[in-house]
Amino acid sequence: MALPENIAIVDFVGAGNVANALGKVFVENNIAVGNIFSSHYEKSLAMAKLVNGTATDNIQNIGKNADLVILAIPDKEIEKVSTKLSVGNSVVVHTSGNQDVSNVGNHVNYGVFYPLQTFSLHTPVDFGELPICIESNSSATANLLTNLGEKISNKVVNVDSESRRKIHLAAVTVSNFSNLMYNIAYDYLRENDIDFDILLPLIRETANKITDLSPKKSQTGPAVRNDITTINNHLKLLDNNKDFKEIYSLLTDKIIQIHNEKL
Amino acid sequence: MALPENIAIVDFVGAGNVANALGKVFVENNIAVGNIFSSHYEKSLAMAKLVNGTATDNIQNIGKNADLVILAIPDKEIEKVSTKLSVGNSVVVHTSGNQDVSNVGNHVNYGVFYPLQTFSLHTPVDFGELPICIESNSSATANLLTNLGEKISNKVVNVDSESRRKIHLAAVTVSNFSNLMYNIAYDYLRENDIDFDILLPLIRETANKITDLSPKKSQTGPAVRNDITTINNHLKLLDNNKDFKEIYSLLTDKIIQIHNEKL
Repeated sequence: MALPENIAIVDFVGAGNVANALGKVFVENNIAVGNIFSSHYEKSLAMAKLVNGTATDNIQNIGKNADLVILAIPDKEIEKVSTKLSVGNSVVVHTSGNQDVSNVGNHVNYGVFYPLQTFSLHTPVDFGELPICIESNSSATANLLTNLGEKISNKVVNVDSESRRKIHLAAVTVSNFSNLMYNIAYDYLRENDIDFDILLPLIRETANKITDLSPKKSQTGPAVRNDITTINNHLKLLDNNKDFKEIYSLLTDKIIQIHNEKL
Repeated sequence: MALPENIAIVDFVGAGNVANALGKVFVENNIAVGNIFSSHYEKSLAMAKLVNGTATDNIQNIGKNADLVILAIPDKEIEKVSTKLSVGNSVVVHTSGNQDVSNVGNHVNYGVFYPLQTFSLHTPVDFGELPICIESNSSATANLLTNLGEKISNKVVNVDSESRRKIHLAAVTVSNFSNLMYNIAYDYLRENDIDFDILLPLIRETANKITDLSPKKSQTGPAVRNDITTINNHLKLLDNNKDFKEIYSLLTDKIIQIHNEKL
């Protein structure tokens, strides 16, 4: 189980949003990217150019000279792709919030390197305070991954698969579902010829406020005030918008319920 | 219909979150706060101390020496309280997103001064880029309110009651409902002994990302990837959490629907 002493070269399987973001921040911090394999070769080429790596169309080239292989691929492919790799003592990790560490357990040294963030291609991400959740099959591997993580982030934490799955569910809730709210409001305002940008300061303040105040104490609006007149006015505005109305009703009821519990 | 030439002194009815935030930013910008009336006298006293105003327990003192009277009170009280005021040529406005301008229409000069933001007591708010939606019964009054708004914000816009109501509904969606998502995640993580703070960078990035990218393009996560395995894993985690599960399902379905439409 001889481990690399240090992670100096990283190979990637996958060349999507997560791979690009990680590759970019590694290179900025003097960690080299080696080979990049993707089922879409043109994506490997584009990423290789960005991070000064080498695109390969043969997965057997992955992990031959690298200290670490990162599988940044869809959840359902992790286990299958992992079995195709033959990497000796190199560490193999996946980046999924939801998949068990054992899905890369066919290797000598393995683990998880899960950056808790929403990645969109070409949107720069500040890694400084971004939590990286580490899990691995040995404390020596954990140390290696932690050292790597700390080169790009101030917040590296050890999290087991079960807790990581729960964190991922919570992450979907605060990020993907909030973004859905932005999308619904965007479409609604566009239908009414109103510029969505008017909401941006409010969106940012809502996100920033909970740094100092719990979400429960931060809650404002008609539901927490039990302002039935306003709620009914809103529902009336949504008479021709069945889906939005259903979501409005369910979430309003939930806010009322949460804030009645404290009485 | 002689108008004040300038708004130098502002009286308040209401001493809650909105009144406090506005009073504070006025004083910081050399606009004086005069009398403050609230049905909770102790709140008027606390606010008077903060903004160097005068708490009064007699609503008839409101508007006697002020150029502007701001009704920062619950929606359902606006019309009733407005009829109690006798203010001569002073301008009377309410601060509601949802109420018609005509609810203060019993005065000579009247309008709406709606700051599009989420206000919590003692949480400082940056007014610089905060939109203020103005409406009024005359262009002269509109000018007065616009001049006042521009002393505290870079973004003063004229919005009629119908559009303001729609903006308010969109604001509830992006702010109050996103905050509900934070609350649900907070409670879920706490039940599982995980610190909510791990989500803060993700929450901020989600809010900031849409400055440059539309919400549709910003969407990430299992639903937009149509990753049924992960979605089912999440639903299984929520087997004992009926409400959260119902919200998760409805919002996930909506994301899938929005992103299938573009195919």
